[in-house]
Amino acid sequence: VSRRVEEIEPLLTRARAGELPAIARLITFVEGESPALRAIAVALAPFTGRAMVVGLTGAPGVGKSTSTSALVGALRAREQRVAVLAIDPSSPFSGGALLGDRIRMGEHATDPGVFIRSMATRGHLGGLSAAIPQAVRILDAVGYDVIVVETVGVGQAEIDIAQLADTTLVLLAPGLGDSIQAAKAGILEIADILIVNKADLPGADRVVRDLRQMRGHAGTVTGWQPPIVKTVAAQHDGVEEVLRAIDDHRLWLVDSGAMVTRRRGRAAAEIAALALAAMRSRFGSTDSELLATLSNAVAHGDLDPYSAADQLLHDDLAL
Amino acid sequence: VSRRVEEIEPLLTRARAGELPAIARLITFVEGESPALRAIAVALAPFTGRAMVVGLTGAPGVGKSTSTSALVGALRAREQRVAVLAIDPSSPFSGGALLGDRIRMGEHATDPGVFIRSMATRGHLGGLSAAIPQAVRILDAVGYDVIVVETVGVGQAEIDIAQLADTTLVLLAPGLGDSIQAAKAGILEIADILIVNKADLPGADRVVRDLRQMRGHAGTVTGWQPPIVKTVAAQHDGVEEVLRAIDDHRLWLVDSGAMVTRRRGRAAAEIAALALAAMRSRFGSTDSELLATLSNAVAHGDLDPYSAADQLLHDDLAL
Repeated sequence: VSRRVEEIEPLLTRARAGELPAIARLITFVEGESPALRAIAVALAPFTGRAMVVGLTGAPGVGKSTSTSALVGALRAREQRVAVLAIDPSSPFSGGALLGDRIRMGEHATDPGVFIRSMATRGHLGGLSAAIPQAVRILDAVGYDVIVVETVGVGQAEIDIAQLADTTLVLLAPGLGDSIQAAKAGILEIADILIVNKADLPGADRVVRDLRQMRGHAGTVTGWQPPIVKTVAAQHDGVEEVLRAIDDHRLWLVDSGAMVTRRRGRAAAEIAALALAAMRSRFGSTDSELLATLSNAVAHGDLDPYSAADQLLHDDLAL
Repeated sequence: VSRRVEEIEPLLTRARAGELPAIARLITFVEGESPALRAIAVALAPFTGRAMVVGLTGAPGVGKSTSTSALVGALRAREQRVAVLAIDPSSPFSGGALLGDRIRMGEHATDPGVFIRSMATRGHLGGLSAAIPQAVRILDAVGYDVIVVETVGVGQAEIDIAQLADTTLVLLAPGLGDSIQAAKAGILEIADILIVNKADLPGADRVVRDLRQMRGHAGTVTGWQPPIVKTVAAQHDGVEEVLRAIDDHRLWLVDSGAMVTRRRGRAAAEIAALALAAMRSRFGSTDSELLATLSNAVAHGDLDPYSAADQLLHDDLAL
């Protein structure tokens, strides 16, 4: 991870040529917060903005990995290159669930047109780590047509994924009172497409009915009403319908201008996160002469901390 | 909480005259992140830096509230004015444990020389909220001689309390494998004074022995070796010894110059936290024209997000 910036160029070339190990190494840079990240971002910027980013979220047990795998299969049948980022927001390390993901995605493991990566997250408060948008940016720039970002629907992570994605799929399944849970968690508000998986189980129609009722007048303002699609992902049933719903949503995004707004919002969040991270590491360094002077004044009661913070922000940054 | 800045002056006067309701209202401003906070901090800055700040932390069940109450009693016998901030870092609301604190502190509830406040915390990652240092600042400025900040020893909170306090007391008790737990959590590294409470229970001597062994060569560099004090706080046994240890530590802080260093470090952390909060709210506002322009450029691939973050930091703040 201590690779130098000059050594990045050949790696980028190999990654853009589709060499999976080179792509994997780039993602590793992102996870390790390498100093080469900036050089990578600068070099890749002109190639970004082409991929479709699909978020996939839902409670544990609804069949996210199976659905992702089925979706990847359907996209490959269309000859699209697909990257999958499987994110576990609960753990700082790759754990059992992620190993499970890899195994269930095994049918695509030898397909050179598919890139699969499990990512842990160091994000605050259960949200997605800042590394995830950078990983998406890399996968976009190296030429994947579709990037599927899969995460467990808990806490802040599913809100973050909706901001990251062009199209967000929310999975539910019969049993477990999932539809009610989803409504409570506000997960319905982030769904562009609602998927009722395991639709061969009893109670699936009730989930669909509940969702239809809760969906209510959603979309009357924005013009997009999230469709409800039934699937049995383990048997690849309904996956084509999901793909058609994604296509419809993409058309709507482009026609309505929502695509531009979403991508601008995504970029804004990314910029703000990087700026905050830069500020945080700057404040954390004790070698700032200005901070030492200000701290001294505050410790002696000559200055209040709010005015000190103002001075730190304005003087230290006006280089 | 929407009180205007001009209305603050009489409140400050009443608070500095020792009126408890006025003090309580000032703390409420801090919790609510009122716009009046800055005016309060400016007005009170010249009166800060006089109080002794004592941190008190330990695992659940070691007797923190009882020890705080006994300590308050001993300080009152010396005719010192005492403020207690009881912090629950696990909950965003005042819960059962805090109610329990209030009840156990009941013996001091009618003493006008004692101020007791339970504070929840909205801090990130289990750390102390930025409101806590501001509350300490207010209690300092309105004239309390000693401010006891009590918190459950979990996660980041006890590290934060050590940074906030002049003297940090770490409580342990026999049973529960507490001494081993403490060593694992690194809690020994933040202790200025180690207290083995419930010393009448079997196993207390073993905890003292374990601590002595683990303490090892601590203090050979700084010149302060944390003393180990046995107490039975419920019977007020050993509390005078704790007070003497606090006195000794204070003398050492002043003589060694560590007091200046600690208070400067505390001010630096406070300034940095306020600066970060200001940045965060600025980045969160969507009305920044510069952020809109930068987001657009990043979304179109004309700019990478790192360079955009640089521009946001430098241009937006160089007012």
